[in-house]
Amino acid sequence: MPTSDFLNPLIGGPGTKGFPHHAPPLRRDAIAAQRWNVLRGDLPLPLAVIRRDALADNLRWMQQFVRDHGVDLAPHGKTTMSPQLFSAQLDAGAWGISFANVTQARVGLESGVRHCLIANQVMAPTDLDAIVALRQRHAGSRIVFLVDSLVQLALVEAWHSAQAEPRPQAVEVLLEIGLDGGRTGCRSDSQAMSLARRLRAGAATRLVGIECYEGLWATGRSAEDRALVQGLMQRVTELARCCEREQLFEADELLFSAGGSSIFDLVVPWLKPALSHPVRGVLRSGCYITHDHGSYRRYMASMNSRLACGHGLHAALEVWAMVQSCPEPGLALLTAGKRDVSYDLEMPIPARWCALGEAVPVPAPAGWKVSAMNDQHAYLRWPLEAAAAPRVGDRVALGISHPCTTFDKWRWMAVVDEAYDVVDAIVTCF
Amino acid sequence: MPTSDFLNPLIGGPGTKGFPHHAPPLRRDAIAAQRWNVLRGDLPLPLAVIRRDALADNLRWMQQFVRDHGVDLAPHGKTTMSPQLFSAQLDAGAWGISFANVTQARVGLESGVRHCLIANQVMAPTDLDAIVALRQRHAGSRIVFLVDSLVQLALVEAWHSAQAEPRPQAVEVLLEIGLDGGRTGCRSDSQAMSLARRLRAGAATRLVGIECYEGLWATGRSAEDRALVQGLMQRVTELARCCEREQLFEADELLFSAGGSSIFDLVVPWLKPALSHPVRGVLRSGCYITHDHGSYRRYMASMNSRLACGHGLHAALEVWAMVQSCPEPGLALLTAGKRDVSYDLEMPIPARWCALGEAVPVPAPAGWKVSAMNDQHAYLRWPLEAAAAPRVGDRVALGISHPCTTFDKWRWMAVVDEAYDVVDAIVTCF
Repeated sequence: MPTSDFLNPLIGGPGTKGFPHHAPPLRRDAIAAQRWNVLRGDLPLPLAVIRRDALADNLRWMQQFVRDHGVDLAPHGKTTMSPQLFSAQLDAGAWGISFANVTQARVGLESGVRHCLIANQVMAPTDLDAIVALRQRHAGSRIVFLVDSLVQLALVEAWHSAQAEPRPQAVEVLLEIGLDGGRTGCRSDSQAMSLARRLRAGAATRLVGIECYEGLWATGRSAEDRALVQGLMQRVTELARCCEREQLFEADELLFSAGGSSIFDLVVPWLKPALSHPVRGVLRSGCYITHDHGSYRRYMASMNSRLACGHGLHAALEVWAMVQSCPEPGLALLTAGKRDVSYDLEMPIPARWCALGEAVPVPAPAGWKVSAMNDQHAYLRWPLEAAAAPRVGDRVALGISHPCTTFDKWRWMAVVDEAYDVVDAIVTCF
Repeated sequence: MPTSDFLNPLIGGPGTKGFPHHAPPLRRDAIAAQRWNVLRGDLPLPLAVIRRDALADNLRWMQQFVRDHGVDLAPHGKTTMSPQLFSAQLDAGAWGISFANVTQARVGLESGVRHCLIANQVMAPTDLDAIVALRQRHAGSRIVFLVDSLVQLALVEAWHSAQAEPRPQAVEVLLEIGLDGGRTGCRSDSQAMSLARRLRAGAATRLVGIECYEGLWATGRSAEDRALVQGLMQRVTELARCCEREQLFEADELLFSAGGSSIFDLVVPWLKPALSHPVRGVLRSGCYITHDHGSYRRYMASMNSRLACGHGLHAALEVWAMVQSCPEPGLALLTAGKRDVSYDLEMPIPARWCALGEAVPVPAPAGWKVSAMNDQHAYLRWPLEAAAAPRVGDRVALGISHPCTTFDKWRWMAVVDEAYDVVDAIVTCF
């Protein structure tokens, strides 16, 4: 079980941006009782907020979605790296959490995660040592990682051979299948099969399933995305059958994992292939938890046209900033920049506007755009013919594109209700 | 004085990337005694390191530079947000530290900074309240911020009027002068003078100097940059004379501040204008502390041609990652991504290479390039005809372009000597 301090940490102290200057550090469970309100000015801006109701809806919708499709969810934890959100995902019914490396998986285990899927290669002795130690410390936990080359496997085997007797239990691995021009993963089937045979032959590893990732190639155009997923998943399924024929798996139940956050509806039908072994299909989508106002919103428009009832995800993450200067017609500078909000896919998207003295926001006028950001500033521009222009002291909520690169800019975020009362908080461990 | 815990914090625990998995959290001053070595594999990668000797050289060179020019240094603290580095800058002789907002200034004050230049507008009541509280808590400290509009000033005055008697001392402000098409700052001289008169007339503020920022327009081409600086600084100097003639300053000594990290050699001669008041010229360059392998390296090439003896800054910040996969000819995936290293100006620059089993790095071969990054991966590419190709398990040091956006991705960094022994550590407060 997670230690209570880990899920209920102290929040605050010098440098905790967005946290009230005058407040002492507080345990997470003492935050709501402060009755802070974002729009009444109780917290300094910029401040990242998660809208509670949207978050709850997203957690519920996604879990229902995987349940309806007979697969499991191990959402990618690298998105949020938040113990509180991992815990919420597990409470909603997630089978496990995915991670990018051992340091992240450790946060998961301390947060109560029992099934850790490290969707990445591991080969450094210090990381392999840590997997052994974490398995011991967290009895009953599983830590699975990816293998995609004989060189990587040789490093894992060298580490294993160097351990004192009795050597640690074999590590559980998934064979990663990749696409030409892509990221990691075996490019050819013959390469994949050679590797699978070596995994079976050695004492250091146990092959428990297959993994791939389609998300890098998603376009949002259904026909292309469907063809992409079909091509990749058919290949993965065929490889699994080959591995079964050669008895290369060492598991009662196979893990079959794919799925980013862009086209996961196209992936799930492929996660339960007809094989001799029972199969646990594991979807890894991570960004659904807060969804967004940009990139994922656009992908979801395509998904809506494919799903009979549409998707049920809502943008839950906003970064509030103040207008600090309106130095030229059509230009306002906001007190948030590259330190505060995602800019890797596109500039943030003005979502709401709360004029000075108001406590109820309105939708940001059409035509408001962030044209650029510096480290600590955003350039908000609007057409000169627009009826509504921001003024110094106004507050603007920036919607985001790509949750991962906003989460990693905050050590805590306020969780708010519809009135922007702070009702909870989360921390991140980046 | 700073509390000892603040400069000597506990480092480690779940989620502290790059910190040895097995080590308990340690005080900063216990790190060196661990005798960890980066290239021996004692710390998980990715890991950000600061090269101690380069850091020390940079601190010394910059302080000597401002001393030689008769000006003071208040390096921008937003670059590092590191109490340990603020302390090192003060120890080297910095007059103060610049910040982007009140939350940052509080970190500075807790770190021992006495002169805080908030090079930004402040107008929210919660931030103004905090300035009053911080001045009280840190006796003898100064917190100065920028004003660039009558609307902002009206907000400061409304806040001041709403305070209970006896009202807080007037806040110290600098008049910010800006350029058309730029960021904040008064665009016209008449606007600036109207604002200065209102600052003088009110009880809430005390005008103690003038500020501007040339860095947004720097090109690295000396003739253009010289003309830019001359135009801006002549205007600022003339405005200061106008303010003197009208007796708008309320200070025995004026602060005159400018200077980013790109063309600061062109700025310093203008920071000591001939005025009736004594003037303290305050240069705000922040990135000199670690310098970089990209953008600032290129600006410095121009500076070298202007300075008789050249500049003495060295790239001190590297992010080490491991090669996790070499799935196609000419492509390696590294275990560092958008979470770990700057990508806002350009991709990171491979700087060093340490093959598996080696403990002494060599310069990264010419032709190695990072072509893209995902959240947790970097795509390292090299020409197929290159003699040297990385292999899985090798370590690569990524040089950075723009220190600010690498510092904000790490909660701690290891300080290393030439042999990559960890000799110290710093933390950041983003």
